[in-house]
Amino acid sequence: MADTFKIGLLGSGTVGGSFAALVAERADAIAALTGHRPEVSGVLTRSKGDFDEILAEADAIVELIGGIDPARDFVSRALQVGKPVITANKALLSTHGEELFAVADANGAQLLFEAAVAGVIPAIRVIEESLAGAYVERVHGIVNGTTNYILTEMARNGLSYDAALKQAQDLGYAEADPTADVGGADAAAKMAILARLAFGAGVTLDQVACEGIQNITSEDIAYAKEFDLVLKLVGTAERINGGISVRVFPAFLYPSHPLASVHGSFNAVTVESPAITEITMSGPGAGGIQTASAVLGDLVSILRGSPRARPPAAPAQIVTDIQSAFYLHLEVEDRPGVLADVAAKLGEHGVSVRSFNQQDAGQGARLVMVMHRTPEHDFFAAVNQIKDLPAVSAEPRVIRVIEEEFVE
Amino acid sequence: MADTFKIGLLGSGTVGGSFAALVAERADAIAALTGHRPEVSGVLTRSKGDFDEILAEADAIVELIGGIDPARDFVSRALQVGKPVITANKALLSTHGEELFAVADANGAQLLFEAAVAGVIPAIRVIEESLAGAYVERVHGIVNGTTNYILTEMARNGLSYDAALKQAQDLGYAEADPTADVGGADAAAKMAILARLAFGAGVTLDQVACEGIQNITSEDIAYAKEFDLVLKLVGTAERINGGISVRVFPAFLYPSHPLASVHGSFNAVTVESPAITEITMSGPGAGGIQTASAVLGDLVSILRGSPRARPPAAPAQIVTDIQSAFYLHLEVEDRPGVLADVAAKLGEHGVSVRSFNQQDAGQGARLVMVMHRTPEHDFFAAVNQIKDLPAVSAEPRVIRVIEEEFVE
Repeated sequence: MADTFKIGLLGSGTVGGSFAALVAERADAIAALTGHRPEVSGVLTRSKGDFDEILAEADAIVELIGGIDPARDFVSRALQVGKPVITANKALLSTHGEELFAVADANGAQLLFEAAVAGVIPAIRVIEESLAGAYVERVHGIVNGTTNYILTEMARNGLSYDAALKQAQDLGYAEADPTADVGGADAAAKMAILARLAFGAGVTLDQVACEGIQNITSEDIAYAKEFDLVLKLVGTAERINGGISVRVFPAFLYPSHPLASVHGSFNAVTVESPAITEITMSGPGAGGIQTASAVLGDLVSILRGSPRARPPAAPAQIVTDIQSAFYLHLEVEDRPGVLADVAAKLGEHGVSVRSFNQQDAGQGARLVMVMHRTPEHDFFAAVNQIKDLPAVSAEPRVIRVIEEEFVE
Repeated sequence: MADTFKIGLLGSGTVGGSFAALVAERADAIAALTGHRPEVSGVLTRSKGDFDEILAEADAIVELIGGIDPARDFVSRALQVGKPVITANKALLSTHGEELFAVADANGAQLLFEAAVAGVIPAIRVIEESLAGAYVERVHGIVNGTTNYILTEMARNGLSYDAALKQAQDLGYAEADPTADVGGADAAAKMAILARLAFGAGVTLDQVACEGIQNITSEDIAYAKEFDLVLKLVGTAERINGGISVRVFPAFLYPSHPLASVHGSFNAVTVESPAITEITMSGPGAGGIQTASAVLGDLVSILRGSPRARPPAAPAQIVTDIQSAFYLHLEVEDRPGVLADVAAKLGEHGVSVRSFNQQDAGQGARLVMVMHRTPEHDFFAAVNQIKDLPAVSAEPRVIRVIEEEFVE
C-alpha cells in the first residue's frame, strides 16, 4: 500500500496546470514504481493560498512561479526545513544558484531543476549522473526554442527577421516583448546552469557573454547557403586554458554538426568529453506539458530516494580571450586590387581564409569568406582595418562559425 | 576521507582494459563527488583469477566477459550475495534478463547495464529515470554502429554492400564473422532490453522480429534518393492495441526524421511519449573507451546510493499484425496497361500510393513507389499478386518506410 506524498505547488499557470493534471494521471503508475503516491496538497496562486501553510503540509515544493522574488525566498525556506524542491526557474538558478545549492547542502535537502534547461531534454540528469565520472570539455546547446523557430523560418521560407518574429508571436512561440528570447538572455541563463554542472564551477548569468539574433538578416542566411552553412543561436560552455568561457551567439554550423539538423522550436544539447567523444540530446523546447513532464521526472527521483550529489563550487575563472572561426561578408567596389587589399589585412593579423566566394552585385561586388579558427581579437582587429578601406562600401557583416571538432 | 570501493572486474579485453584505466584516471574526482574511491581489486581473465576469491573481496562486480556462460552464473552469484553488478552484456540480458532482475530484486542488489545498449547514449538511464513517470508509446533506435557505418558508406560513396562491409572490417568496425551485426541479432537484443524498460513488460530476444541488411543493394539506396529517403537499420518497439511489437528491419526515413541524420558508426535512440512528444539521443556506438565510460556512469550511480527501481514484469503480449508504410521497386515491360495492372492490385488490397516515379530502364521501365501505412499482410498479399503479373520481369524489391508521426 503506497503512502501519499504531498506536493505544495507554487504557481498555477500553463506549466502548473499541466503538472497538476499529469500528477493525477500518472499517480497510480508512480505509486507502483516507487511505493509513494504523489498528490498536490496545496496550490499557491497570485491571489490565493498561504506559503507557510502550504509548506507545512507538503513533503516537497514544486516552484513554477518564475522570476526572482518571491521565488528565491520560498525555495530557500523550503530547503531550510529540509524539504526537497523542484523548480523550473532558470532566472533564479542562474543568479542565485550557489546560494540555494549551499542551503540545500547544509540542510540535506534535494534541489532539482531538470525543467529549467532545454525543455524535455534530460541534459541536467545526463551531465550530473551519466557523466558524473567523466571530464567534460565542452557543451554546445540550442536552448531557446523561440529563436530556433525564427531562424528556421528565415532559412526555410526566406522570411525577414521581423516577419518570422511576428509569425512566432502569432503562434505563441514568442512573447509580446520578445527581448529575453531574441536578445539571448534566456539562453545565457540556461548555459550558466549547464556550465555550473558540467565543470563544477560557479557561473552566473552576468558572466555569460551574450549576443542575440536581432541583427540577423535573411541575406546572411541566404549567402551562407553557398557554403552549406546553417545559422543557429548557439550557447557554448567550454574549458579554455584552465578557465571557462560561457557565451551565446548566432553561429553558422556545417551540416555535419549534430546541432545543424535541429529545426523549428526544438532544443538540443551536445556534451563533449574525451571518453565519450560526444552525446547529443534533442527534443521539443518548453511547452506546458513538456516542462511539466520534466518536473515529474525529478519528482520520481525524489520518491525513489535517488540523491543528487552536488559539491560546493568555487567561482569560475572566466576566460575572455577565445578563438573562433568567422564568416565575413563585404560589399566592395568592383575594381582590381580590392581582394588583394582585404587579403593583406587578414594576413597581417594571422587570419587564414578557409573558403571564399565573390559575386557580382549590381553596383559592386560581394565578397563572402569563411575563416579558420583564430583569436577573436586578431580577427576583429583585421575587420576594423578592412572596413576603413576605401573600396569597402558597407559595414562588414561578421558571424561566428562553429567547426565540427569531431569527424565521424 | 574517502573509503575504498573495491571492484571485481570480469574480463580484460578492450573494454575491460579501458575501464581499469578510466577508474584509475577518475578515482580522485569520483571520490570527491561520492565519498568513495573506486579501485579495481581483482581481475578475472580467461587464464587467470578465481571468481569466488574476486567476489569475496569485491564491493561490486563489473562483468565484461560477454556471452551467456559463465557470465550468467557469475552475475547471478554476485547478486545472490547482495553485491551490485554492472554489465555490458546484451546477449545475457536479452535472454535471461527477467531471471537476473528477479535475483537482484530478491536480494536488494543493483543490476545496472547502461553499456549494453547504444554505446555512450544514456538511453537506459533516461528511460528508467527521466521518463519513469511517463507513458512511453514508442522507441526507435539505430543501435548497431557496424550496420550504420556500412549503410552510410553505401549512400555516401555508392559502395556495394560487399565493398562497404569489407571496408568496415578493415577499419575494425565489423568482425570477421559479421553475422550478428548485419543480420540484425545484435540490434534485436538491444531493442528487447529497451522494450522491457520502456513498457515494463518482459521481452526476450526470440520475440523480436528481425531482418538484416545483407540483401540491400546500392541501387535501392540510389533509387530512393529521388524520394529524398535515407536507409537505416532501425529497431522499433511500440505499443499496439494493448500489446507490444519489437522488430528490427532496414527502413527508409524521410530527412526530417530525427534518426535520418545519424551517420557513420553513430547510434541514436528516439523515445516518444504524449507528454514529451519525443526525445532523441545520439552518440558514438560502442568503442572500448565509450563502453567503459558508460560502465563508469553506472558505477557512480552505485557509489551515490541511487537505487534503480525495476518492478517485476509480466511477459509481453507480442503483436505481429502491424502496419507499415512501404517502398516498392518493380522492373516491368514498357508497354501500355502495366501501371494500371499494378495499381489495380494495390487498390484491391486497400494499399494507397503516396508517391510514384517511373523511369526508362533500357529494356523496360522501372516503377518506384512509396505507399502510405497499411496492414503489412494486405501489402504483402498485393505484392504476391503483382509479382505474378506477366509484365513484371524481376522479383519486386520491398523495403519499409518510417513516416514521421511528429511534425515540428
